[in-house]
Amino acid sequence: MKKRDKKGPVSKKNALSRNRTGATCDWKSKPPKIKRVSGKSSIYRYKGNYAWRGIKTEVYKPGKGDWSNIVRKVLTGDNLKTKSHVRYFEIASGGKSSFEKHRHEHIVVGLRGEGKILLNKRSHKIGFLDVVYVSPNTPHQFLNHFNKPFGFICIVPAKRDKPVLISHCD
Amino acid sequence: MKKRDKKGPVSKKNALSRNRTGATCDWKSKPPKIKRVSGKSSIYRYKGNYAWRGIKTEVYKPGKGDWSNIVRKVLTGDNLKTKSHVRYFEIASGGKSSFEKHRHEHIVVGLRGEGKILLNKRSHKIGFLDVVYVSPNTPHQFLNHFNKPFGFICIVPAKRDKPVLISHCD
Repeated sequence: MKKRDKKGPVSKKNALSRNRTGATCDWKSKPPKIKRVSGKSSIYRYKGNYAWRGIKTEVYKPGKGDWSNIVRKVLTGDNLKTKSHVRYFEIASGGKSSFEKHRHEHIVVGLRGEGKILLNKRSHKIGFLDVVYVSPNTPHQFLNHFNKPFGFICIVPAKRDKPVLISHCD
Repeated sequence: MKKRDKKGPVSKKNALSRNRTGATCDWKSKPPKIKRVSGKSSIYRYKGNYAWRGIKTEVYKPGKGDWSNIVRKVLTGDNLKTKSHVRYFEIASGGKSSFEKHRHEHIVVGLRGEGKILLNKRSHKIGFLDVVYVSPNTPHQFLNHFNKPFGFICIVPAKRDKPVLISHCD
């Protein structure tokens, strides 16, 4: 087990200092210097409580915006140079992602608790193993109006465009 | 709900007649004429018991080989024209996938029960939410030596090469 595994979830302050990125969760203006292992098959063991050995917890986005109370765990992408990036997001009760759109697709699989996705102006509930396809350029936002954490896997292509933030007043 | 949803899991005979493909699960020499929806966001509701509304159950591969007792549910790919294809595979007790290799990657997430993956000549246990990256050209096989079904999500790029079957004697 690597040293970072023993630290447990990373605090917001530490995560920010380790991961100084651009304004959106899917776009890094200055990619962090992370060792990429592209040639070796790997296993990331589930530790329970929606945590994996060797996978750190990051804040969803630095800075301020219409998002809140959300963290990201990159299961493949930072640590492995893969064609698809698989990320686990978790939104605490009352939290949400940013309302945004982009040309790349999302494929989402509900894992923990339940939450909602706003697709254009329509809200849909997401529960365990519900599969959601967010087509290119569809405005979307994930929200947790419930009392328990809402966790889901989100799959995106490694090569993807920068999200555009949208105002709910647009 | 579409008509096919009410049918439940498709029998082996019916699945074969609907899905006449090539020799491997990841390669269709004559792609079936399936209506593709690329422009519309979609939700596939989980029905319980590792089944989804609107998603059919197919045999893993037609024909005979070193595989047995395994089915596939294509969550995105057949029904949605996505960059990544997300499939749920389930191997019954005693079953296995073929021992094969290919240039494209696999990203696997354990969901139901437990099983094993053979990577080259080494076997590794896979349980709930364990994440496995199978790097390009790594010989691999999924096996279920346990008493209960072993189910997992497998993510592959939409554009991928044809798997090459390998003999364990090679």
